[in-house]
Amino acid sequence: NRRNKVLTIDTMNPNVKNVEYAVRGPIVQRAVQIEKELREGVKKPFTEVIKANIGDAHAMGQQPITFFRQVLALCSYPELLKDNMFPEDAKSRARRILQACGGSSLGAYSASQGIDCVRQDVARYIERRDGGVPCDPDNVYLTSGASDGIVTMLKLLVCGEGASKTGVMISIPQYPLYSAALAELGAVQVNYYLNEEKCWSMDLSELERSLAEARKHCNPKVLCIINPGNPTGQVQSRQCIEDVIRFAAKEHLFLMADEVYQDNVYAEGCQFHSFKKVLFELGPQYSNTVELVSFHSTSKCYMGECGFRGGYMEVINMDPEVKAQLIKLVSVRLCPAVPGQALMDLVVNSPQPGEPSYTTFMKERTTTLSLLAEKAKLTEEILNTVPGITCNPVQGAMYSFPNISLPQKAIKEAKALGQAPDMFYCMKMLEETGICLVPGSGFGQKDGTYHFRYGHRSLLKHVITTSLSVKWASIPK
Amino acid sequence: NRRNKVLTIDTMNPNVKNVEYAVRGPIVQRAVQIEKELREGVKKPFTEVIKANIGDAHAMGQQPITFFRQVLALCSYPELLKDNMFPEDAKSRARRILQACGGSSLGAYSASQGIDCVRQDVARYIERRDGGVPCDPDNVYLTSGASDGIVTMLKLLVCGEGASKTGVMISIPQYPLYSAALAELGAVQVNYYLNEEKCWSMDLSELERSLAEARKHCNPKVLCIINPGNPTGQVQSRQCIEDVIRFAAKEHLFLMADEVYQDNVYAEGCQFHSFKKVLFELGPQYSNTVELVSFHSTSKCYMGECGFRGGYMEVINMDPEVKAQLIKLVSVRLCPAVPGQALMDLVVNSPQPGEPSYTTFMKERTTTLSLLAEKAKLTEEILNTVPGITCNPVQGAMYSFPNISLPQKAIKEAKALGQAPDMFYCMKMLEETGICLVPGSGFGQKDGTYHFRYGHRSLLKHVITTSLSVKWASIPK
Ligand SMILES: Cc1ncc(COP(=O)(O)O)c(C=O)c1O
Ligand SMILES: Cc1ncc(COP(=O)(O)O)c(C=O)c1O
Repeated sequence: NRRNKVLTIDTMNPNVKNVEYAVRGPIVQRAVQIEKELREGVKKPFTEVIKANIGDAHAMGQQPITFFRQVLALCSYPELLKDNMFPEDAKSRARRILQACGGSSLGAYSASQGIDCVRQDVARYIERRDGGVPCDPDNVYLTSGASDGIVTMLKLLVCGEGASKTGVMISIPQYPLYSAALAELGAVQVNYYLNEEKCWSMDLSELERSLAEARKHCNPKVLCIINPGNPTGQVQSRQCIEDVIRFAAKEHLFLMADEVYQDNVYAEGCQFHSFKKVLFELGPQYSNTVELVSFHSTSKCYMGECGFRGGYMEVINMDPEVKAQLIKLVSVRLCPAVPGQALMDLVVNSPQPGEPSYTTFMKERTTTLSLLAEKAKLTEEILNTVPGITCNPVQGAMYSFPNISLPQKAIKEAKALGQAPDMFYCMKMLEETGICLVPGSGFGQKDGTYHFRYGHRSLLKHVITTSLSVKWASIPK
Repeated sequence: NRRNKVLTIDTMNPNVKNVEYAVRGPIVQRAVQIEKELREGVKKPFTEVIKANIGDAHAMGQQPITFFRQVLALCSYPELLKDNMFPEDAKSRARRILQACGGSSLGAYSASQGIDCVRQDVARYIERRDGGVPCDPDNVYLTSGASDGIVTMLKLLVCGEGASKTGVMISIPQYPLYSAALAELGAVQVNYYLNEEKCWSMDLSELERSLAEARKHCNPKVLCIINPGNPTGQVQSRQCIEDVIRFAAKEHLFLMADEVYQDNVYAEGCQFHSFKKVLFELGPQYSNTVELVSFHSTSKCYMGECGFRGGYMEVINMDPEVKAQLIKLVSVRLCPAVPGQALMDLVVNSPQPGEPSYTTFMKERTTTLSLLAEKAKLTEEILNTVPGITCNPVQGAMYSFPNISLPQKAIKEAKALGQAPDMFYCMKMLEETGICLVPGSGFGQKDGTYHFRYGHRSLLKHVITTSLSVKWASIPK
């Protein structure tokens, strides 16, 4: 006599049902369960779960930048401005942020596009970063993490049905926010493969192949690039970025550049080049026409402040009518979290030489980035010593995406269990060693190749290498 | 020779184009301009813009709760835990929250559904509020403000095309987040009118009319209620809520109860009844079947902490398979802002009798709520003295939605300008008095009636009454 539910798996939005999201998928759910079992005293061959699945710096023990947290505390509880325990530059930053807030409180809604003075500071930061290429604060939108900006832009861009449905080109392997957002919006995901043999670089010919293929069944309008790359850790060369921009111009594509790892470049000879800077260096033929949006975040780099959900995006050459639509769209959710906006401001307006906090700030920043660089190197070295695993140099970002040459027997066994072979591998690894990896299938990979993503922060735990090697022995061969 | 843009008003997502959002629409944009002009020395008949358009407590001078801000400062900069300036209960709350964060830092991503211990605290709060009706923390999802939760739930629910497109019933007048989200999702907005003559109450017969009408052209699946109401300030009676639940059960509708103003009840004889509590009091026939989600937020009540974007939703009788889909969906954006989660925790786990901060907390809370009650009363009284304006009692929330009987001449003049008559009225008001109101057309109203929404916090500024009366004189008659 129980009535049927209104909302069931059959009546719900099918686009949402089609979303896949491996980073927090079955492996992570099992990891959480195992942690619970360990707490309850269940015996395992290990004593803790090592979360190598996610780029969550603070969770892995990275310390926050003192200056940032001092200013955030001052903004949260302005009574502290009377206290003598805080340096003057922290106090003056806090006063400036509070003055820009309604009622001088982090608790007021901000303008939907973000606090004015923060957007101005972002614009000046971008100009410094890009060697003077001008940036108009009106083109800067603060967001709740880069995720929010990426989804918002895709929402504006995606429309149509059937053969005129918007196609969005994304790299494979990709950060799964992209595939998830595209599924949710009902867009066509157009894959282009990064070249694993050439250290995960972008090939023009592959872009051309992918686009030509897509044009047969949809309307490809957008090209997304993640640089430095997640999950693949590559840093694209200046030449490559030039090629991509010319390609976008020629093929009439809107560029989305995910540059959240812009400070995470480790390999010698590698350097971060922003799409905006290269666009302007190509001259007005490009800089006046090619539509570009780039994303940044407080979550990565030396900050690792994921929980605050700070971020911004800059739009270049966006149609003014569309800009008005974008402002309307972001207004519906009122505003990005104000503490995240404050933090974003501190990132783009950090202590300067001569200010009391400068030395400590620089020391903390350098220490974190050096440690990350060291781990990147170590990751590559160590993974390449494990039988069956081959790993490209980790040039940037916070992960590596090593190739596992799984024996036929293991592949068969996995298929018998109805699991992707690399999911089988990662599950085995988790159950037997407590190491939580994300299988390559969650990011996409060439058919017949297998990978996992390894968040290299977790290398602090030396046990890992040994575990990986030992466990290789237990993979069916 | 300039190429066309990829993204133009003609190629963009038409659903986004269809979104209307008056709360931050043309009136507010003009208000921002006027503020700028005033700063630049332009002479006006007033010296400041009075923003009566938005329920932004801190921006209007409301002070934050000291205890909340102390704990947030401690969580942001845990060095302060060593300091003696903070009360012990603030420190212990901060320690508890930090322990539940990855790496003991607000900077780590939390679980996508929200921090475990916060969800537990929310569940206990709901149980206390509802006189012991049980609440399972697994049914609680932390959100980035209530906005986030509302949009997420609609995203799950909306699907179909043509006559099987999901219809969502919303009250008119409504809070325009609802119409905006429905436009964006391409759902059918199904209007039911609140009864202005009966103090904006809900009529069963009107719900029936609206549903029958909708069934002719779409598939109505969801019924949204805002209680206490925005923009209309009513508090629904227990009887009315019972009727609505029985109606939803009979008609197979999913209930969405927006209860963000649950502490904002002022009128004598009025009381807040949560949908959940009433549902359970109706007995298992209802409490085991009717699907309900209710929303709360840190933005309203006595907190007014809008900028932190804290909130939660509780789902009742949701299909377990759908719950898994919901968790997947919220995972894509990683997590709600962690400082907002911390704040939500403090709201549901505020200082208790015997704790050092209790007295101050209660004093601050009571002062704010009394002031709001006073303003609600004053608003009604004052508005009713202005010629041409009739205002219902403000029973709760933070606004009133007075009726303006615009003279035919004014309506004609407005139409000649291509403006909605109440937009014309509000623009005139803004230009001549600096008072920023939102026209009723932004919330919806019965054809031929005109209103504006007035955020009653702004009554602190006594100039308003005089201005409203004087300016009535200048409306064309
Ligand atoms: C490439 C990339 N883009 C965007 C994000 C989203 O980050 P957030 O929303 O925390 O800024 C991430 C997070 O890992 C990422 O790796
Ligand atoms: C009825 C109602 N629901 C939801 C919201 C959204 O509030 P927030 O997202 O700040 O929690 C508001 C804000 O004014 C509101 O009035």
